[in-house]
Amino acid sequence: MNYIQLFEQIKAKRSFLCTGLDSDIKKIPEHLKASELPVFEFNKAIIDTTAEYSIAYKPNLAFYESLGIEGWKSLELTVNYIRNNYPEIFIIADAKRGDIGNTSNLYARAFFENMNFDAVTVAPYMGEDSVSPFLSYDGKWVILLALTSNKGADDFQYFAEGNTRLFEKVLTKSQEWADENKMMYVVGATRAEMLEDIRKIVPNHFLLVPGVGAQGGSLQEVAKYGMNSKCGLLVNSSRGIIFADKTENFAKVAGEKAKEMQLEMEELLKSYKVI
Amino acid sequence: MNYIQLFEQIKAKRSFLCTGLDSDIKKIPEHLKASELPVFEFNKAIIDTTAEYSIAYKPNLAFYESLGIEGWKSLELTVNYIRNNYPEIFIIADAKRGDIGNTSNLYARAFFENMNFDAVTVAPYMGEDSVSPFLSYDGKWVILLALTSNKGADDFQYFAEGNTRLFEKVLTKSQEWADENKMMYVVGATRAEMLEDIRKIVPNHFLLVPGVGAQGGSLQEVAKYGMNSKCGLLVNSSRGIIFADKTENFAKVAGEKAKEMQLEMEELLKSYKVI
Repeated sequence: MNYIQLFEQIKAKRSFLCTGLDSDIKKIPEHLKASELPVFEFNKAIIDTTAEYSIAYKPNLAFYESLGIEGWKSLELTVNYIRNNYPEIFIIADAKRGDIGNTSNLYARAFFENMNFDAVTVAPYMGEDSVSPFLSYDGKWVILLALTSNKGADDFQYFAEGNTRLFEKVLTKSQEWADENKMMYVVGATRAEMLEDIRKIVPNHFLLVPGVGAQGGSLQEVAKYGMNSKCGLLVNSSRGIIFADKTENFAKVAGEKAKEMQLEMEELLKSYKVI
Repeated sequence: MNYIQLFEQIKAKRSFLCTGLDSDIKKIPEHLKASELPVFEFNKAIIDTTAEYSIAYKPNLAFYESLGIEGWKSLELTVNYIRNNYPEIFIIADAKRGDIGNTSNLYARAFFENMNFDAVTVAPYMGEDSVSPFLSYDGKWVILLALTSNKGADDFQYFAEGNTRLFEKVLTKSQEWADENKMMYVVGATRAEMLEDIRKIVPNHFLLVPGVGAQGGSLQEVAKYGMNSKCGLLVNSSRGIIFADKTENFAKVAGEKAKEMQLEMEELLKSYKVI
């Protein structure tokens, strides 16, 4: 999927919601646990009620990897289910991978060939050759960690050489590897005020913004500081949507929560004159 | 496994070799490819001829993840095979994971509960809460990326605040989270001269050193700058051992290559008076 198709979808759905499929088996409704692949059953139901409002889905790999082979099956089936039923939707492997070039190649093969993801989140610490193998696929994206939403972001991401903080160095340096048609950045909603500085370095790029909702970030603030003329934002919500209800009504309630976010996003897209 | 047990194994085997199980299915001998799980068959044979000389095994997850469910099965069987047949050996998941605390918890579950690894490599970029979930398991270790062996290490790891480079900040800061009984660091052999500076910050820690052999690092240099009184080194070799021969003799030749390294390591352990 390219930048233009992504923006077309945002305009059509009047949303910039990324629904995070952090489908922790310990938190899914009890009645699903008897099925053969409970996580896949859960995801299917969630996807059917939220796809109308979602631009992207983002399964975090940890929730699948922690289930071993069963989790891997559930992940593959989930990606195929989205592809086959909602082909317009952008699918992100939230994997935070990154290794020496020879090895990153194989991660790229895993996510872009074996599974049909559109994008992978990648950790920048190991530099260019750890990132570039993911950039060699047409129509596929790297989403590089820049400024994350967690407390630990303070430990190293603000480390500064002169006036340049590490996350700013990551934003600048990585633009030598790919432009806004292949690369996005992770910027946590809990650091919304930082988006103003970040937009000076990457005015046109899409930003993947986690941390709204359970982690305390504000959608209004994210739009205020981060939105550009092509929206340029994918705001993720996971727990606030998928675990809003834990009864047999869970999927219906998830759809309602996704719709609430879509409506709020539509207002913001209008007020910043993106649509 | 604790620090003392690791050192006891080093003294008993007169080696500090970590054999990297980067078992790329595209590189394993042809005659194995007809079996149901060729990567597992390959690993088993390699392990049987190299265990005598190896302190640790380190499967890099990318080589397994890129095979999907089959790869996951091969990995689980490999870990169990080592555990059951060579219980003294330290097993490292070279996964370079790291995510917000809530999510790193699940990666820790995957590697330390579902599979019985002794250690996981972790990327430091997201800071303390991305690392600490891996530290909550008794007898399990984090191996944190500090200065990696690849070219891209230059992009961010030497970024400096005053006189402190990022990899040094990682070494210093992370000592607030765990001591040398729970934490090791990755330092590439291609940066052997940097080991002198690194030992000033972490004199007692074990260092996992990739990059000897195919990547060009020198074992002599690594020992010169990095060895401490308890050895403090696990030097990894992957391709130089496991793909030294691609005929039906592959396992025998791998054993010979591992023995060559062990003999060289024994000399170094003696000359630095560790044994």
